[in-house]
Amino acid sequence: MKPAVCRFSISMDPELAEQLDTLTAAKGFANRSQAVAHMVRDELVDFYAHQGRHEVAGTVTLVFDHHHRDLQRRLTSIQHDFQQRIISVMHVHLDHHNCMEVLAVRGPAEEVRKLADRLTTVKGIKHGTLTLTTTGKEFSK
Amino acid sequence: MKPAVCRFSISMDPELAEQLDTLTAAKGFANRSQAVAHMVRDELVDFYAHQGRHEVAGTVTLVFDHHHRDLQRRLTSIQHDFQQRIISVMHVHLDHHNCMEVLAVRGPAEEVRKLADRLTTVKGIKHGTLTLTTTGKEFSK
Amino acid sequence: MKPAVCRFSISMDPELAEQLDTLTAAKGFANRSQAVAHMVRDELVDFYAHQGRHEVAGTVTLVFDHHHRDLQRRLTSIQHDFQQRIISVMHVHLDHHNCMEVLAVRGPAEEVRKLADRLTTVKGIKHGTLTLTTTGKEFSK
Amino acid sequence: MKPAVCRFSISMDPELAEQLDTLTAAKGFANRSQAVAHMVRDELVDFYAHQGRHEVAGTVTLVFDHHHRDLQRRLTSIQHDFQQRIISVMHVHLDHHNCMEVLAVRGPAEEVRKLADRLTTVKGIKHGTLTLTTTGKEFSK
Repeated sequence: MKPAVCRFSISMDPELAEQLDTLTAAKGFANRSQAVAHMVRDELVDFYAHQGRHEVAGTVTLVFDHHHRDLQRRLTSIQHDFQQRIISVMHVHLDHHNCMEVLAVRGPAEEVRKLADRLTTVKGIKHGTLTLTTTGKEFSK
Repeated sequence: MKPAVCRFSISMDPELAEQLDTLTAAKGFANRSQAVAHMVRDELVDFYAHQGRHEVAGTVTLVFDHHHRDLQRRLTSIQHDFQQRIISVMHVHLDHHNCMEVLAVRGPAEEVRKLADRLTTVKGIKHGTLTLTTTGKEFSK
Repeated sequence: MKPAVCRFSISMDPELAEQLDTLTAAKGFANRSQAVAHMVRDELVDFYAHQGRHEVAGTVTLVFDHHHRDLQRRLTSIQHDFQQRIISVMHVHLDHHNCMEVLAVRGPAEEVRKLADRLTTVKGIKHGTLTLTTTGKEFSK
Repeated sequence: MKPAVCRFSISMDPELAEQLDTLTAAKGFANRSQAVAHMVRDELVDFYAHQGRHEVAGTVTLVFDHHHRDLQRRLTSIQHDFQQRIISVMHVHLDHHNCMEVLAVRGPAEEVRKLADRLTTVKGIKHGTLTLTTTGKEFSK
């Protein structure tokens, strides 16, 4: 069984350590360990996002005018083609015209990217973004 | 009343126009106009995201282990402090341990950023990301 | 022979066209055509940067303290291994301690990346960045 | 006098520590300390780049066809307006037509950005990029 926590020491220039403290405070982390762990995970998410077959989680965020003819039917049809990649969909009303639809997705990085491309290029989409994150498996904490 | 569409002409080097066609096809846009409109909107979202008082929409995506003691209580408590900025929350189960929580948010760019910082620095969060998009108001289509 | 310029028309929502004008003025472009061409080229540089075998130009920027023992010898030694990829090197003195060395590089995207990784991980480098751009061949204007 | 090095310990989940080792090896860092210091500096450069009055160093990279009428005269004229911000300029020939000009710059982040905007919007520039880095002062090592 693995120990609950791994403790190791880091050597750093004293001024850099001071600045790490400034950054830790500015961002609101509890301590250096938490700030460093956060940076390491950010690097890892970025590292894996460039490996097409690596399984990632993420969101696709779409903003559109729901009055746009035929738009929602097309979005739904694409979503069905990628049904296995889409966990859930949240739909919110921004104002009388505008909707934001957020899809929680997971799958190999390259397939998730393909799904995002298909959705964001649908005629009538005002803005679409793909955000990649971890499935959590890589990071036990 | 404004016309439904504005038509204007663009001068471009012939080789650049050819490459715009390659890009249009590779990404899956219907035509040059749609590809260009997409690029203009991307630039605008980025432009406004750097103006702290401009109203933006967006998502905060958080991945965490729901077994982590006290984590959900803290997230909920922060969310209540920013209640007016949060439109809706989607919570999905990635596996036995891992959850992804996606908040649909809106408000002045700088406040939305502050909310994201507060949430992503909570102890136990494996990865947190802020994605900014448009409220749709800027773009009628 | 190709014509010197290609003129085509773009359809866009009138409000988006207005905002394109705002952006054009804010960034200092002469007109819409120039602003759009700039966005298209930005997208293309990004598109090609992800194709490992595509030939790119770029810079590697390194900041370091020249008093750091053995650092310059190591940098020079790596640079010789990648001699064919390095066109020229500019070395400037930032203050009594700090130097910035900027390498103008060209070659397949993946090799240029490898060179940048080798250089930025040398012990004593304070900060290293790779910037990719075009060799100009893709864009006649 | 400050000690030459500051040693402190970090707590991390064992699996995350293992993955930090994978990342350290993949990028070519000598050890965990060096990889972590690198991430901290990257975060700091980004942090300071968003503070307009903070002094930064950087490069502006421009690619253009030197046959383009009047282009070089305009570039030179803008460079003289910002003379105090430009340390040195490197000019390389990419092929018969294309040049890459790299300016080593320093000054408050917002002024350096303004200089880059002025230069990259000059008619005839095929691609322009601003890269920000540290003046080295923040990081003694």
